[in-house]
This record gives sequence, C-alpha cells and structure tokens, in this order.
Amino acid sequence: MIYFDNSATTLIKPPEVSEAVSFAINNIGNAGRSFYPPVLTANREIYNTRKEVAKLINRNEPLNVAFTSSATESLNLVIGGLIGKEDTVVTTQAEHNSVLRPLYLSGCELSFIKCDDNGKLLIDSSVELLMPPTKFLICTHGSNVTGNITEVQKLYSLCKANGIIMILDISQTFGSIPLDINMADIFCFTGHKGLFGPQGTGGIIVNDNYDFKIVKTGGAGVNSFDTFQSQDMPDIFEAGTLNSHSIYGLQKGVRFINETGIDKIRAKEKQLASMFYEGIKNLERIKIYGDFSTNDRLPIVSLNIDGMTSAELAERLWTGYDIAIRAGSHCAPLLHKRLGTAEMGMVRFSFSYFNTEEEIQKGVLALKEISQSLGC
Amino acid sequence: MIYFDNSATTLIKPPEVSEAVSFAINNIGNAGRSFYPPVLTANREIYNTRKEVAKLINRNEPLNVAFTSSATESLNLVIGGLIGKEDTVVTTQAEHNSVLRPLYLSGCELSFIKCDDNGKLLIDSSVELLMPPTKFLICTHGSNVTGNITEVQKLYSLCKANGIIMILDISQTFGSIPLDINMADIFCFTGHKGLFGPQGTGGIIVNDNYDFKIVKTGGAGVNSFDTFQSQDMPDIFEAGTLNSHSIYGLQKGVRFINETGIDKIRAKEKQLASMFYEGIKNLERIKIYGDFSTNDRLPIVSLNIDGMTSAELAERLWTGYDIAIRAGSHCAPLLHKRLGTAEMGMVRFSFSYFNTEEEIQKGVLALKEISQSLGC
Repeated sequence: MIYFDNSATTLIKPPEVSEAVSFAINNIGNAGRSFYPPVLTANREIYNTRKEVAKLINRNEPLNVAFTSSATESLNLVIGGLIGKEDTVVTTQAEHNSVLRPLYLSGCELSFIKCDDNGKLLIDSSVELLMPPTKFLICTHGSNVTGNITEVQKLYSLCKANGIIMILDISQTFGSIPLDINMADIFCFTGHKGLFGPQGTGGIIVNDNYDFKIVKTGGAGVNSFDTFQSQDMPDIFEAGTLNSHSIYGLQKGVRFINETGIDKIRAKEKQLASMFYEGIKNLERIKIYGDFSTNDRLPIVSLNIDGMTSAELAERLWTGYDIAIRAGSHCAPLLHKRLGTAEMGMVRFSFSYFNTEEEIQKGVLALKEISQSLGC
Repeated sequence: MIYFDNSATTLIKPPEVSEAVSFAINNIGNAGRSFYPPVLTANREIYNTRKEVAKLINRNEPLNVAFTSSATESLNLVIGGLIGKEDTVVTTQAEHNSVLRPLYLSGCELSFIKCDDNGKLLIDSSVELLMPPTKFLICTHGSNVTGNITEVQKLYSLCKANGIIMILDISQTFGSIPLDINMADIFCFTGHKGLFGPQGTGGIIVNDNYDFKIVKTGGAGVNSFDTFQSQDMPDIFEAGTLNSHSIYGLQKGVRFINETGIDKIRAKEKQLASMFYEGIKNLERIKIYGDFSTNDRLPIVSLNIDGMTSAELAERLWTGYDIAIRAGSHCAPLLHKRLGTAEMGMVRFSFSYFNTEEEIQKGVLALKEISQSLGC
C-alpha cells in the first residue's frame, strides 16, 4: 500500500510510538490517583509529554498544555468554555466541521471570512469583521482540503489591535510546519496526525490566562471536596482519568519531531508535495484545488479528473495502484460549496515525512494512466 | 509489586490488550473516513468491539453501544444531553465526582438517597423521592469506596412505575459482576477498569431511544453538509475521529471476559475479597467500611488502622510490603463525609481476577504486622 492519507491520520508512525503505548498499558497506572511507582510513572510521563509539546511550539510552560481525547474535544471545550449566544464570532469558509458545529451549537452570532476560487482566505476584504463587537476569531491554521496555509500573522495582528481572542485549529499544521506560541491566543491540536501520536490524543495550548467556563467535569484525583475541579490549566480540561497510555505514545511521536527537527520534516514534506504537484499539474482532464501561487503550503494536493467522481477515482487508485487517499468532502462543507465540489467531492493526496520519492512517482504515474485512459 | 488498586485501573491486563493496541497503531486507519483496508479494518473492529460489549450486557443491538474516551465523558454527555436546570433529579450520597459534578453543572434540582453507617443506600426510606416531579435517577451500580452493590432492581422498579429514567454508572461493576440491559435505561462505563481495556476508552449503552441533546459535536466522516452529526445512536456521542486504536484493545479485554465467563471471574474475585476480609476483620485497631452483612459485594475492602492516616498506612504498605493500594477520598466526597473519613481518608484494597491467593495472604500478613506494630 502507498499511504497518501496522512491528513486523515498518519498511519506510518515512528515505531517507538506503538511500543510506548504497549509498554504503558502494562506498566503505567492512573495518574494522580496514588503514589506507587506505576502512578508516579504516569504522572512523570504525562508531564514529559507536556514538555515535548510545549517545546514544539516554543512555549516554556508545560502546564499550559492540556490533554484531551481529540482536536474535536479540544474545540468543543474551548468554544463551549468561552463562547455563548451573546457573542459575536468570526470564522472562515475553510473550516472543518469540528470548528463549525461547536460554533453553531454555541448559538453565537457568526460571520465568515470568505475564500477566493483557490480557497485562499480573503483577509484584506474582511478587515471590518475583525473589529468590535467581534470578540473571537476561530480559524484553521491550514486547510485539510486545499492545503492552503492561513496568514495567521496578519489575522493575529488585527485581533490584537481590536481585543479579539484568536483560537487556532492546528490539527493540520502541528508537526508539519514550524509553529510558535505567539501566532495566536489558544491552540487546539490533535495527536494522531502530524504529531504521529495514537488516536485518542489531542489537546489545548494557551498563551495566557482565559476565563474558561467548565464544560466537562468530574473527578481529578485531588481536591475531591470542591464543587468542581480546578479552573487552572491544565486541570480545567482534564476531568477524569487521563489517557496516560496514549499520551505516552504521543510523547514519542512529538519527541521524534523535536529530535529530527521540524525544519527537516517541513523541507521533506514540501519537496514531496512539490514533486507530486509538478508531476501532475499539466495532465489532461486534471483539476487541482488550492493556492499554488505560493510554495508555503501543507503537503496536500486535492484534485479531480474530469469525467469521474472523486469516489470513482479513489476506487481506481486503490484497486489499480494500491494507493490510499481520501475522497469526498473531508468534513469541510463550506469550502466544498465555495469550490463547487459539494456533489463530486475531491480526491485528497496528503503526504508525510515517511513517504518516499518513489511513492510520489508511482502516484504521478497512476494519475497519468487514469487520465490517459479516459481519452482527450 | 502486589497490585491491589484495580478500582483505579486494572494494571494487569490480558496480554492481547496491549498487543492489539500496538497492532492497531501501525495498521488501522481513521474509521469511516475512506474505504481502503486499514479504514475498513477500523470500521470492522470498532463494530466487533460494540458486539463484545453488547454481549457482556445481554444487549442484542451493537449499535446501541457508543464509545467515548472515559466514563467521565460518558456521564457528561448523558447528563448534559438529558438534564437541564428545570429538571428534578435524584442521585445518592455514594456517587463519584464524575456523577456529582456534571449534575451540579447542569443546575438541576438535586436530591440525594442517603446511606447508613455502612454506606448502604437507604432505598426504602427514599421511596418518596422516586416519584414525580423527579424525572431522572442517576446512581452508581457499585461504590468505588465501600464495594457495596446497589439494589438496582428495587430502584429500577420504582423508576419504571413512576416514569423516571434511570442512568446507571457501571464503572465499578462492568466486567466484575454479571450485568443485564434490563437493569436500567442508560449505562455509562469505563474501559480501563473491570473491562481490562486501555485508558482513553469508555462508553454509553442505551436500552431504548432517548431524546439526547447534542453536547459535543464535530465531524463524523459522513453527512458533512448537515448542521450537526446524526442524533442517532451511536453517532450522537461519537463526534470526531474515534479512537479505534484503543477500542481495538478494549475489544480484546471484553472478549477475554466473555470467553472466560463473567461468572468465573465473579466467583474468583469474590473468593479473593472474602479471603482478605476474613483474614483481617478481627485485627486489632482495624476499622472496615462497607456492608459486609451480604456476600454480594464488589471485590473492594476499604479500611483504616486506628492511629494512622490512610496516607501513612498506604506508605507503609508500599515501602514495607510492595503493596499498591489507594488512600485518600477516591473522588467520592459525600460518602466520605457520611462515614466520617473526610479528613483521614481510607485505604482501599481492590482486587481483580489476576490477583492470587498468595497475594491476598501477603496483604493480610502486612496489615497484621502493621496493626501489631502499633501495640494494643
């Protein structure tokens, strides 16, 4: 199998990730619930994971990293914890349902930064949205559909100038491109994509103190006689038994990135994606989505071949070439509507550090053959 | 180490649990997000886990089992999804904070079934609570502090007679004692205790259709153009990437129970707990908590030794005897207040199928020596 579905989940992980989880299941206790060694190991390794995550985003304070079970949970906790129906909020047409749906659920007053025909956010013509009464901007750092990277510096400057809290969904970017804590106020991440962690991991990183309401509550192992768990980071988001088994695996994934160097990972992924794009961009019948006027993109190339639906193309790639990709609408309904692909979907190729040039060549060849088979 | 902290997490698991998770991390994709084999494997193994869980509770419909990241999440989703501040709700003094705190957060009108001096629920004198306007009863199936098992049949009869929905927290009982779907309306469970699964797993089982509000929302891999994910079971509780890695491990834990036989597990755990209790009940200075007038108890024995706090006793058990237990208040504040142990806590011994008679004997001997060392 040639695995080009890394934006869904990175199936190829550093081997130490699964080894760590396996070890943890048999050796690590319930963090914070007693003091014998397997519990102390849980405590220590969770803290060490916070350190690795903090390091990757240049944040010196590990306790400003909270763990959740997914980016979806992170976004629900942050949006539910900060945003109510009285709030004016801005988001974008490029968002995943993990952002859109919690915002709909909050009942807030919602406006959208629109996209151009390449899915690029039209920030310059949306400046008036990022002013009072807007209180929050929540947006993706990189589109899981087009691979476009959001101009966060421009957005964050506008937010800071106008007292707007900026929440960044880094599900597609963390582990793939260099990030810095000063890019936004609050970051929501997943563990099982660019960070090479297991499923069931994710988190929230904060750049300051925010007045989160408690959304999810329960036991915390300490202060059992208080009405709720502590509202300090990271406790406010970590009610119940922390998933130390998978968090220990996540630590190994993030450490792999920190040790390899995010710049090296970025360079390789960029090179693979460019090689793929250059190989297919002039094929007959191909339609590629996204802003390729810049090289500063995620390693994602989404496309269609005229004459077949994305599902048909996906089927041919798998049955004919053993290539795993993701067809359909990628849980990003507004962007697909904007790009006119709500019906047919797109075929998304998403690459990782563990892909090879040879695999890229096979992917290019596959598309060439399929395209040619349809005639001119 | 002698591990007697199984009510916190079962550290000793069937080896196939960690093997399965390790396999899954390297071979299983993002469930429901495409159709190539690693994704189909994820879909299939999640479904097979639903089947194993359903089997253990005599429920024929696997899709009535939803997966979450923990019992805490399950309880938050169920309580948040059903209960609002206009509702009259009954719970008990024996509850864990994972029940109490979401109830407090809901703002509902809350009454408590009280406990006697042994922590036994005073159901007969609480009958008037289980009448209109009460709409919900939520209670633990077995106390994580005393090991008392709740008389659920009596409670459920009262609930059914009065149109009250009964939500049962089976965190301590599922996998330890035989359960049946007709014991309550809605069940919230954890995976990492009696079911021998990894941390990061849990779920919700329903006995019928209930009008849950959506509490947590996000992408579901299908129906991306709808405002929210489906409100049908199990989708309503499963927004975002399902943790197929750990769910596959949970499957192996539950299958171990189904293949071994819950009656066999129950018999062994009961026998170990009885042996321990009989060995220590007449020791000098010992105070044992819980209702031991019945043998129908969880394999939990909680105690104190007069002259030391629970933390001191825990320390001596670990340093002198390599025995891991849980001191403190076990996230059950009302019960500790009721039993007068809010200050000193208790030392909880909790046994599992993987404990041995030899370990029990060592535990008894340890308590005997510690008790004797304090003099009469």
